[in-house]
Amino acid sequence: MRRRAQRGHYDRATIDAVLDEALVCHLAVPGDDGPIVLPTGFVRIGDEVVVHGAAANHLLRLAAEGRPVCVAVTLLDGLVLARSAYSHSMNYRCVVVFGRARVVEGEEKERALTAFVEKVVPGRSNEARPPSPSELAATLVLAVPLDEASAKVRTGPPNDTEADMALDVWAGVIPFHLVRGEPVPDSAEAGA
Amino acid sequence: MRRRAQRGHYDRATIDAVLDEALVCHLAVPGDDGPIVLPTGFVRIGDEVVVHGAAANHLLRLAAEGRPVCVAVTLLDGLVLARSAYSHSMNYRCVVVFGRARVVEGEEKERALTAFVEKVVPGRSNEARPPSPSELAATLVLAVPLDEASAKVRTGPPNDTEADMALDVWAGVIPFHLVRGEPVPDSAEAGA
Repeated sequence: MRRRAQRGHYDRATIDAVLDEALVCHLAVPGDDGPIVLPTGFVRIGDEVVVHGAAANHLLRLAAEGRPVCVAVTLLDGLVLARSAYSHSMNYRCVVVFGRARVVEGEEKERALTAFVEKVVPGRSNEARPPSPSELAATLVLAVPLDEASAKVRTGPPNDTEADMALDVWAGVIPFHLVRGEPVPDSAEAGA
Repeated sequence: MRRRAQRGHYDRATIDAVLDEALVCHLAVPGDDGPIVLPTGFVRIGDEVVVHGAAANHLLRLAAEGRPVCVAVTLLDGLVLARSAYSHSMNYRCVVVFGRARVVEGEEKERALTAFVEKVVPGRSNEARPPSPSELAATLVLAVPLDEASAKVRTGPPNDTEADMALDVWAGVIPFHLVRGEPVPDSAEAGA
């Protein structure tokens, strides 16, 4: 995915749309021997990206210390097949956020975890048993502000050069769709 | 995605299967003010993960300097809906590689770019025009060894506690499938 100036977007509507559709982000923190990346679920709440995980998680603890982090969220929309190998590309929407995380606690922490469940399956937080005090204590919730967020978006057909347009090679886009399949009940459900 | 010891895999068959299925990786390098992450296409070639991009790309240039990098590859397989909010999870397969990149040049560079096109659409490298010398010069190809690679995999149903199994809440998995849609020819194709 090559950087091109015209692919950059900084408006919040574009950024929020990507963040609200994607379920997984990649969170990078500086470890002692180089960066460490963790793929993890997340939810945007207002002007922040919120992640959570085990309170013992090494990477989350480093982020909680206030080290600079980078959060990347990518949606792959299609393969762009050009007439030249060089002009092959992908259609995608991606957001990158730079910042430092703050630890979310108390009632705000509970609301953040509820928002995460609601994002994944709306209505679910009214059904599932809410977290107990010990489960809350075992969970670390971090929020990264969107102050330094940007989006990059590529859409549309390939960009072949004039000269390459004469080549007898199929060109176009193969779109990708992330599809939710039929729910698979667990064995207790299936036996009920 | 919580870390659990039993989710770790270090065998190459597991690692290679994830790398060979996924199309996008997240590459992190230490920038001057913290880590920077780039989502980008990649291909596994033998014992290395190979990425490429514009030779002018800031992040790739930092990686080419020999800074320590981290490459993460994630496949999201499903949502795991448990009876408790806390036990909600995702099914996923993920590989994380730590290492330093080497710059790939000469004939090896051409072969790497061919391998990338072949991964995305097998057979395509015999159809598309191969890169010209100036296109090759404008492209930076980097390879990161798999010496320090590990996989984490979560599969199967939710893990509710004994006590939670009595709750009257649906539990199971909603699988995800990444589907390739109908190819969309570009305007020249469509008009041909």
